[in-house]
Amino acid sequence: MRLDETARGVFVISVTPFDDRGALDLSGTDRLVDFYLAAGVDGITILGIMGEAPKLAQDEAVAFARRAIARAAGRPVVVGVSAPGFASMAALTKAVMDLGAAGVMIAPPGGLKGDDGIVGYFESCVEAIGADVPFVLQDYPLANGLHIPVPAIERVVAACPSCVVLKHEDWPGLDKLTALRAREAAGLRRLSVLVGNGGLFLPHELSRGADGAMSGYAFPEMLVEVCRLAAAGRQSEAHDVFDRHLPLVRYEGQPGLGLAVRKYVLAKRGALASDAQRKPAARLSRETVAEIELLLARLAAATEAGASPLRAAGRS
Amino acid sequence: MRLDETARGVFVISVTPFDDRGALDLSGTDRLVDFYLAAGVDGITILGIMGEAPKLAQDEAVAFARRAIARAAGRPVVVGVSAPGFASMAALTKAVMDLGAAGVMIAPPGGLKGDDGIVGYFESCVEAIGADVPFVLQDYPLANGLHIPVPAIERVVAACPSCVVLKHEDWPGLDKLTALRAREAAGLRRLSVLVGNGGLFLPHELSRGADGAMSGYAFPEMLVEVCRLAAAGRQSEAHDVFDRHLPLVRYEGQPGLGLAVRKYVLAKRGALASDAQRKPAARLSRETVAEIELLLARLAAATEAGASPLRAAGRS
Amino acid sequence: MRLDETARGVFVISVTPFDDRGALDLSGTDRLVDFYLAAGVDGITILGIMGEAPKLAQDEAVAFARRAIARAAGRPVVVGVSAPGFASMAALTKAVMDLGAAGVMIAPPGGLKGDDGIVGYFESCVEAIGADVPFVLQDYPLANGLHIPVPAIERVVAACPSCVVLKHEDWPGLDKLTALRAREAAGLRRLSVLVGNGGLFLPHELSRGADGAMSGYAFPEMLVEVCRLAAAGRQSEAHDVFDRHLPLVRYEGQPGLGLAVRKYVLAKRGALASDAQRKPAARLSRETVAEIELLLARLAAATEAGASPLRAAGRS
Amino acid sequence: MRLDETARGVFVISVTPFDDRGALDLSGTDRLVDFYLAAGVDGITILGIMGEAPKLAQDEAVAFARRAIARAAGRPVVVGVSAPGFASMAALTKAVMDLGAAGVMIAPPGGLKGDDGIVGYFESCVEAIGADVPFVLQDYPLANGLHIPVPAIERVVAACPSCVVLKHEDWPGLDKLTALRAREAAGLRRLSVLVGNGGLFLPHELSRGADGAMSGYAFPEMLVEVCRLAAAGRQSEAHDVFDRHLPLVRYEGQPGLGLAVRKYVLAKRGALASDAQRKPAARLSRETVAEIELLLARLAAATEAGASPLRAAGRS
Repeated sequence: MRLDETARGVFVISVTPFDDRGALDLSGTDRLVDFYLAAGVDGITILGIMGEAPKLAQDEAVAFARRAIARAAGRPVVVGVSAPGFASMAALTKAVMDLGAAGVMIAPPGGLKGDDGIVGYFESCVEAIGADVPFVLQDYPLANGLHIPVPAIERVVAACPSCVVLKHEDWPGLDKLTALRAREAAGLRRLSVLVGNGGLFLPHELSRGADGAMSGYAFPEMLVEVCRLAAAGRQSEAHDVFDRHLPLVRYEGQPGLGLAVRKYVLAKRGALASDAQRKPAARLSRETVAEIELLLARLAAATEAGASPLRAAGRS
Repeated sequence: MRLDETARGVFVISVTPFDDRGALDLSGTDRLVDFYLAAGVDGITILGIMGEAPKLAQDEAVAFARRAIARAAGRPVVVGVSAPGFASMAALTKAVMDLGAAGVMIAPPGGLKGDDGIVGYFESCVEAIGADVPFVLQDYPLANGLHIPVPAIERVVAACPSCVVLKHEDWPGLDKLTALRAREAAGLRRLSVLVGNGGLFLPHELSRGADGAMSGYAFPEMLVEVCRLAAAGRQSEAHDVFDRHLPLVRYEGQPGLGLAVRKYVLAKRGALASDAQRKPAARLSRETVAEIELLLARLAAATEAGASPLRAAGRS
Repeated sequence: MRLDETARGVFVISVTPFDDRGALDLSGTDRLVDFYLAAGVDGITILGIMGEAPKLAQDEAVAFARRAIARAAGRPVVVGVSAPGFASMAALTKAVMDLGAAGVMIAPPGGLKGDDGIVGYFESCVEAIGADVPFVLQDYPLANGLHIPVPAIERVVAACPSCVVLKHEDWPGLDKLTALRAREAAGLRRLSVLVGNGGLFLPHELSRGADGAMSGYAFPEMLVEVCRLAAAGRQSEAHDVFDRHLPLVRYEGQPGLGLAVRKYVLAKRGALASDAQRKPAARLSRETVAEIELLLARLAAATEAGASPLRAAGRS
Repeated sequence: MRLDETARGVFVISVTPFDDRGALDLSGTDRLVDFYLAAGVDGITILGIMGEAPKLAQDEAVAFARRAIARAAGRPVVVGVSAPGFASMAALTKAVMDLGAAGVMIAPPGGLKGDDGIVGYFESCVEAIGADVPFVLQDYPLANGLHIPVPAIERVVAACPSCVVLKHEDWPGLDKLTALRAREAAGLRRLSVLVGNGGLFLPHELSRGADGAMSGYAFPEMLVEVCRLAAAGRQSEAHDVFDRHLPLVRYEGQPGLGLAVRKYVLAKRGALASDAQRKPAARLSRETVAEIELLLARLAAATEAGASPLRAAGRS
């Protein structure tokens, strides 16, 4: 199974499980993957920024990818291979594609200069990883400070046939999404657009033409449900479901702190044995934990009141 | 009336009204100030970043301040005086304090180096504007890229007795707020802390010890109500009121685009004759307008359902 | 006299003279302008970054421009009008053009997004200042973090007929200069290119097609001599003259500190009554002063030894 | 042999040799190390930023370190181990220390917040690599955007006894160096300070108290000679030697392009079989090559004229 421009739905951004001493928790990977699959995701993206990828040695990254791919039972697994150099990127790509990954994801470095710099970078990536490996272009200026204008995306699409998905996390990004879809209507090769940035604008982005989400919110079943409702033309219900979660989505979206929040909730939900992160890592203060608990209690009450279809999945 | 560390409640961040050709709408200032006062705010902050301050010539800034202060009928008006040089900062400060402003607000430039650079900058500000002018320290890294650690704030508090309010907009910033309050419990002179960043975390920040909000959300009566409920110990209701508005708060929080959203809503609510901004300005696409309208309709339905006390104020 | 694309030679970046209490030294302006003219410059650029422009109130800026233009005795004076908003930019432009300025200089702000953002910004500038005012596009990423790719310059040239000079200070920038000249050879309207960045690569830049320098080194007669020799095809002598000054050019090029060094030397040479800067300003430590004195002594010895044509001018 | 605070002289920043297809040139390592030793260096620092470290896979990095350490014949070899995560940093450190490295060098990431963030980062580094591994703190804001104030350095020195060398590349940095030495005079544990930033201020930095250079200029014998002369109290001769090279030092200092210049010269001098870099890499234009050749010819003429002691070494 190869990633292509028909990718739709939720490719959940997976965390990476560690034990309390910071060792990779390989057996915990099974539980985590099962949790994601039970939530109804269409695919899994591992070793992204929120997957603590840079904190893993390469052999650890490969070991984790092997386990996740094996457990995903045929669901596509996309692997983040962003690296400061092409040697590491190529080596990791080869390893994970040999293991059965569906494709890879690449975030460009922040210092690229102009559209030429951006297009040249992705051309070099393709040269390094091979033109046969489908890849996700990650557009995430909040993380790397790089603005990628629509004309640069167009040029990457033209220059790199293996670019098949855009992970859209520009902020603000709604009109950018619309502009890209307009270019496609005018003849540009179509990309799958899966949105990130914590899913903060998911229902609006689906209305603007996104195909789904590549995000890692701790209740992935909400992302699945919103995508399902939107695809069925039930916009209003999609917003209803989303808005009940928005207080926590916003709280999880705090830069630097968000991953600790997400892992705390995933651990509480049983998806992780430990919420440990490798250093450098934000720690949850006592007050932060209390706020998360408050938000979880309010979410539970709201979904109860709303007779939410999430209840079952939320407790799976 | 002088601003001091007892400032509480909502000091609304005022927009600046322009007509459709970009001229300052002085008479519209009255209507806008009346709108804010009717919403129940405790004070008004003009000429901040969201007040398009850098786009006004200095005589325009003074003319607007004169009108706003006169109309505020005794409510404190704080004036943003951030400027690339101290000559302009001092001249504007003198002009607005002579007109009866309660104090000024200063955002440091982004390039300061280290805690020494930050403290030295504010010492120079005080030297420029006079030690008798109370000022608000604006801590807004999302806008200027400058991180101000708590130890630097402590040193500014010690070095500058006229620093009386912190406009807290760091993100994430909840633990920073707690850390500052802990330092005060240990003896540091107390500041009023009014939170900004669009109010995105307002109920949590109030629980962490904030005294109120200095933010400009297009429904300022919500900020007022949340502060009132929190002050009365009714946390849960404060969250209820806030969460109904969160979808729009989040939408208004889009960098660059947010002011256009805010002005659109304010104009629709009758607080502005025109939603015009001076250039450079983001424009609302057709799709964006539709999204705002959707969010307003959903907000109206939610507050209806919630028997919200906002209804009357929202239509004042 | 209007600035146009035939501008050549040295448009010296003028400092702004202050007295020891920080007041604008208007009468000192005459002495400074005389010094620059005696050094053989072709024009003067005032109120640039090294002219402490943001530290002046607008009436001070106009007063200084009036005096400098009057004293320049017909030599073209270009005025920096960069400002955070178009209202201030337009007002200052109108004032100085009425006083007889040859044109204005505009540095874009750092946060522009993509080529569209850059081109749109300069279109708005032209709308604000008037299409009849010739302007210098300042390309200075070290100061504002904005990379302006050659295709964006091409688009500004096409969209803005009043853009007549490029102040070239990208670093590295030699190949960029060559690329621009190649585009002109292919039909792009020609710009005058005057180089800045302290003149650090001046002889190379002249070989690459620059028309001269817009820089403010404390020995402007060196810049004049290098441009003269290069224009006469005497590259090797141009390098000889330049290299004798390079240790001081490099020392003056220190970010933040450089202006203090420059003013110290200008004061020592009699061009300024005081080396005072307005705050915020770097101060020269005792060790720094000793280093400048050492570099001046070595420069004097080197030019002596080299039978330099600078001697007379250097003492003018 | 362990690196400690007595490190003095020149620890040359080594390039990494690749063949024309981008493969690591292990046998070329011997020639390169021999070249550096013949130039008189006191030590060698490999896998720094200019050593293209991030472009090597970890096994390549270890292979190169093994070869270089073996060939260095007892001279200390410092290995850059900067990495986005501590797992990779620890693994590489262990590998190279086992191979006989004298110590490691660590550049902090750019996003650290405040002095606490900086100190905490280095404490975590020590925890990861072991308190027994001596390390060089690389202070290079031009590369990573991080300003490290002197008080933060003091705190690292106090918290991390294994921090023994400061690679000083702040710019401007002369007064910072003086401030650090003043703190040491007041009781702070002494560091060896070796300067980088291309050696652009080397003779001044030696006068300010630096112990030598950790820089990679293509004529390392010049760095050696300048350090030797300065140590012998012959400041003026040190400047003479340095100034003859300054035009090329400046040219090599161009960000992004500099490494291509350096490798070109090293290849021309016989230290490298190929000037190939791994991608991403700047390429030398025809014009740039001509400029380098001009600068080399002028340097040869100048050193000839100056009866330079570099001649022999320069041709070794």
